[in-house]
Amino acid sequence: MSEFLYPEPLTASIFAPFGQVIETNRATQEGMNDGRFERYTDLATLDFEPPAQARIDVVRCLHPTRLPYRFKVMERHPLGTQAFIPMSEFVFVVVVAARATTVERNDIRAFVSNGRQGINYHRGTWHMPMIATAEGQSFVVIERAGDQPNCDKIQLPDPITLMDLPVTA
Amino acid sequence: MSEFLYPEPLTASIFAPFGQVIETNRATQEGMNDGRFERYTDLATLDFEPPAQARIDVVRCLHPTRLPYRFKVMERHPLGTQAFIPMSEFVFVVVVAARATTVERNDIRAFVSNGRQGINYHRGTWHMPMIATAEGQSFVVIERAGDQPNCDKIQLPDPITLMDLPVTA
Repeated sequence: MSEFLYPEPLTASIFAPFGQVIETNRATQEGMNDGRFERYTDLATLDFEPPAQARIDVVRCLHPTRLPYRFKVMERHPLGTQAFIPMSEFVFVVVVAARATTVERNDIRAFVSNGRQGINYHRGTWHMPMIATAEGQSFVVIERAGDQPNCDKIQLPDPITLMDLPVTA
Repeated sequence: MSEFLYPEPLTASIFAPFGQVIETNRATQEGMNDGRFERYTDLATLDFEPPAQARIDVVRCLHPTRLPYRFKVMERHPLGTQAFIPMSEFVFVVVVAARATTVERNDIRAFVSNGRQGINYHRGTWHMPMIATAEGQSFVVIERAGDQPNCDKIQLPDPITLMDLPVTA
């Protein structure tokens, strides 16, 4: 098994086992405000353990991460979904693994956004802590509020090297 | 009373009666992911009538609105807050009036974002339906999901002309 992980293009169907893609390329949308806007509805389902209060944060990259990037820890949030929506157009990569008690190397996938897509991790989806590749890149984060512990971490048996993005990304 | 309305700069304190400003200029924030990000927490309170399920939409401007812009209708959402967060850096203007059974001309204020600020209308804050000044400008919208009627409209006795933005905005 290779220790290298190559990002694939992010699409809603391929990402479905891990979460939702928040994007505006769907065929169906509706008008709003006398047709001045088009509205893409219900792009993310917030699935929160009660009491289900959402919080809205903004996270801003202070120290960019260069690819290739070696990581050996993944995390999951058992009590709720977690959405990351870019606040400007920039390409970013997410690394995920299927919901299971542990993480198998063959379950780990990397996806690269087109710069305008956000994502919403399913409750319990394993993921690499978010990285960004340039200072100042910011995300809106929508997740469950509350004081209960909501972050499990897992140490991978062997570190994995997330490879650089395809040039066309 | 003038029929002209001039936008003022948007700040958290001046906007407090109408809603919250979603921005990253607060003094207090915390680190995240080994200090790679700074995190600005709880920027918006979602105040929803139960069952309090949030929905996340994206709205994208199809037909820009030119200022000065004449309007005569305002609306409010009695069952929940409504947040608009720009998905790229662009200046936009919101028009609001205090929560009350009706709208008095002297209560109407206009605020112009600095291009990186979002807003979260309090439950019941009267506001002009959102406008954008360039095609493609997009907002993330976070509001209450559900089928119950959640939009009151009010006709102003006299139309109001929202004036152009200050050149420095």
